[in-house]
Amino acid sequence: MPVDPARVVADLKELRELTSRPVDGLPQTLGGRPTGTTPLGSARLAWTDAWVRAREWFVSTFEGVPVETTRDAAGNLWVTLPGERPERIVLGSHLDSVPNGGWLDGALGVLAGAEVLRSLHRDGVRLPVSVSVVDWADEEGARFGRSLFGSAAVSGTLEIDAVRHLRDNDGNLLADVVAAHGVELETILTASDVRSLLVGSAELHIEQGPLLEAAGRRLAALHGILGVERRLVRLQGQACHAGATPIPLRRDPTVAAARMAVAVRELGLAHDAFTTVGVWRVHPGVPTAVNGRTEFSVDMRHLDRNVLDALVAGLEELVAGIAAQEQVGATIDTLWSIDPIAFHPELVEFAADVVEARSGVRQVMPSGPMHDSAEMARCGVPTIMLFVPSLQGLSHTHIEDTTEADLELGVAAFDDLVRRMLPWAADRVGAGVR
Amino acid sequence: MPVDPARVVADLKELRELTSRPVDGLPQTLGGRPTGTTPLGSARLAWTDAWVRAREWFVSTFEGVPVETTRDAAGNLWVTLPGERPERIVLGSHLDSVPNGGWLDGALGVLAGAEVLRSLHRDGVRLPVSVSVVDWADEEGARFGRSLFGSAAVSGTLEIDAVRHLRDNDGNLLADVVAAHGVELETILTASDVRSLLVGSAELHIEQGPLLEAAGRRLAALHGILGVERRLVRLQGQACHAGATPIPLRRDPTVAAARMAVAVRELGLAHDAFTTVGVWRVHPGVPTAVNGRTEFSVDMRHLDRNVLDALVAGLEELVAGIAAQEQVGATIDTLWSIDPIAFHPELVEFAADVVEARSGVRQVMPSGPMHDSAEMARCGVPTIMLFVPSLQGLSHTHIEDTTEADLELGVAAFDDLVRRMLPWAADRVGAGVR
Repeated sequence: MPVDPARVVADLKELRELTSRPVDGLPQTLGGRPTGTTPLGSARLAWTDAWVRAREWFVSTFEGVPVETTRDAAGNLWVTLPGERPERIVLGSHLDSVPNGGWLDGALGVLAGAEVLRSLHRDGVRLPVSVSVVDWADEEGARFGRSLFGSAAVSGTLEIDAVRHLRDNDGNLLADVVAAHGVELETILTASDVRSLLVGSAELHIEQGPLLEAAGRRLAALHGILGVERRLVRLQGQACHAGATPIPLRRDPTVAAARMAVAVRELGLAHDAFTTVGVWRVHPGVPTAVNGRTEFSVDMRHLDRNVLDALVAGLEELVAGIAAQEQVGATIDTLWSIDPIAFHPELVEFAADVVEARSGVRQVMPSGPMHDSAEMARCGVPTIMLFVPSLQGLSHTHIEDTTEADLELGVAAFDDLVRRMLPWAADRVGAGVR
Repeated sequence: MPVDPARVVADLKELRELTSRPVDGLPQTLGGRPTGTTPLGSARLAWTDAWVRAREWFVSTFEGVPVETTRDAAGNLWVTLPGERPERIVLGSHLDSVPNGGWLDGALGVLAGAEVLRSLHRDGVRLPVSVSVVDWADEEGARFGRSLFGSAAVSGTLEIDAVRHLRDNDGNLLADVVAAHGVELETILTASDVRSLLVGSAELHIEQGPLLEAAGRRLAALHGILGVERRLVRLQGQACHAGATPIPLRRDPTVAAARMAVAVRELGLAHDAFTTVGVWRVHPGVPTAVNGRTEFSVDMRHLDRNVLDALVAGLEELVAGIAAQEQVGATIDTLWSIDPIAFHPELVEFAADVVEARSGVRQVMPSGPMHDSAEMARCGVPTIMLFVPSLQGLSHTHIEDTTEADLELGVAAFDDLVRRMLPWAADRVGAGVR
């Protein structure tokens, strides 16, 4: 029996039911959803009982399939269908969710990978290489602020000293919490020993944005992930009484920040880029005073390194110009910076082929959000992703949704892709087609 | 001996010394001051030991003067030099300060009033009416958020049920805290019984703004206090991923708020008014998401009721217009509204006369900040104020300052004013000049 996409939708619903009850003090299923039915939020925060329960249930879905199940030193859960060689194709995503998150973000990729594995076994497909489904640990970083935790340990980009002292909102230390789940920071990077075996990586995910739905597309191949330049702009003016200092005599950092925020949007539009002001803090932040300080974050994304550089230069120019006009001091700190990530050109072609075959349109696009696949690509594993649409572009909320028809189409295309990758992977490891 | 302005400056320094030590966990004297010497901040938060100490010291400055000292039901401290009749001229301001506040805000008016009282006694001036210095309780509202507490109790505008449940940052209930200082909310409004005796009110204060210094003026008579219309604008957009939803598809309440903040400043400039955006809150307020909600306060002040109405209409228009363009929902809530307050025309003339005589310029202006004098004027007591400059327009900070020469000039003018009010007050109560 070939891949059964309806089984994946059923599994997603079962997982949602299993983990939608109030967990960790967070009520799930608040508010309405696009389709009008009662939504169930997902509460699979990494390193919690609900997350452990989700993983136990996940392993149980392989009953009767001769898989090897292991947990690596970073807490990643590997379910491997052995092939003729130990080299593996990785089908990875994540079961963890943000608090009161959606039912698809991450879970779709893991459960689709599981069904592909089962179908390869059912079909008796010859496996020149092994195939692993991996549930990467703590992709969301929703508790400690460090996203892509497990996949970064495997790729080798995780900096132990940068995470050791992170605490969650309840004051729990990351080091203690992961230790309770059998992960020791001192040995965590041994998880990357597996890297030499990774011959390819594929991930199916929801778009988390509105573009596919807006364009009437049901599937997309991804050619990469946008690079990010993230800054914090701090403005220093002069606090004064709201009723005593006339406007022309003020040095108001909040109005200066407001002008900059508008200019940041113009900058993004001019470069066809994503620019976002998210954080915004004022001090003292009372109705009766002109603020003395204002700070805001600027997140800038584009697939082209040159455009990212132009965005950074444009931000610096507009901040300096407006700060001078408004007579406020300005500093710009770098919060994060990551180059654009290109997926493997041959795999992008494979993916575009299956997308075109399944949906009738050769849709290729980049991802704005980060994914575990970025860590695979960064450490040199040939990597590819597929997207299905997100209704209204919503994600990281319990009203996140995708039509079942699109979910099933995505699973079928993902299965096509993996089957096409098998001989390609065999060639790469010299196993050839017998 | 006539009034001794140098004594007031010396008293202000003594009080600053007495209350500048770390109190209530708040370090005083951080940072630098305009004149380069080490500043001392003032920590006389209402209803604290430091405030009680300040009041005890204040009462001690009347040694040898036949005053009557009483505390009313609202905790206001009255020091009265009895005249031929019980009707009184009130010289009122406040000894309480904001945390790490300045040495002059409030204290100048109280200590200048004290010196005027002593000098009237020293000079043997005939008093057809009584003269009281009053230290109004909790003018700043820095602990519980309710400004003009004591003077509002006397004027009758204090709403008991609106303050009963207020708590300070440590969770202490206002009702409990004032009770520990002998003030019972159930009987607090009996403090207003004194109103029928109040024949006039005068207050000397620092400007707390930059206008006098900028204009090279050393003194001003006030003709009133600006009216205030204070609003909270709440914008509802759609939160989404900063890397997944292109700018043209967003409904971003933060950019909408930024455009509104710029427009609010233009509105103020167009009406020669004070308009200020102080509070600014975003949700979720993370670097990686377009915000779903943004809210900000707008404080608008002017002396003309018609202009205030035009500001309110202008705000409603600009919010509606930009919200429609940005496709965000918008509501406007009223936080506070108070009509402009006009001081007594005859007293304004008296004050302008003494300002002109002492400084050579007939400077008359309104106050933007609120003062206890507003409560006196609101309940029908003929009221007047004088201002001395604030260096750099700064107040509510430990670097608040005024030159000693200007402080002394202010005290001398204040003494002139009170002596001119005495026969006027006598006429008003029918006591005449014998």
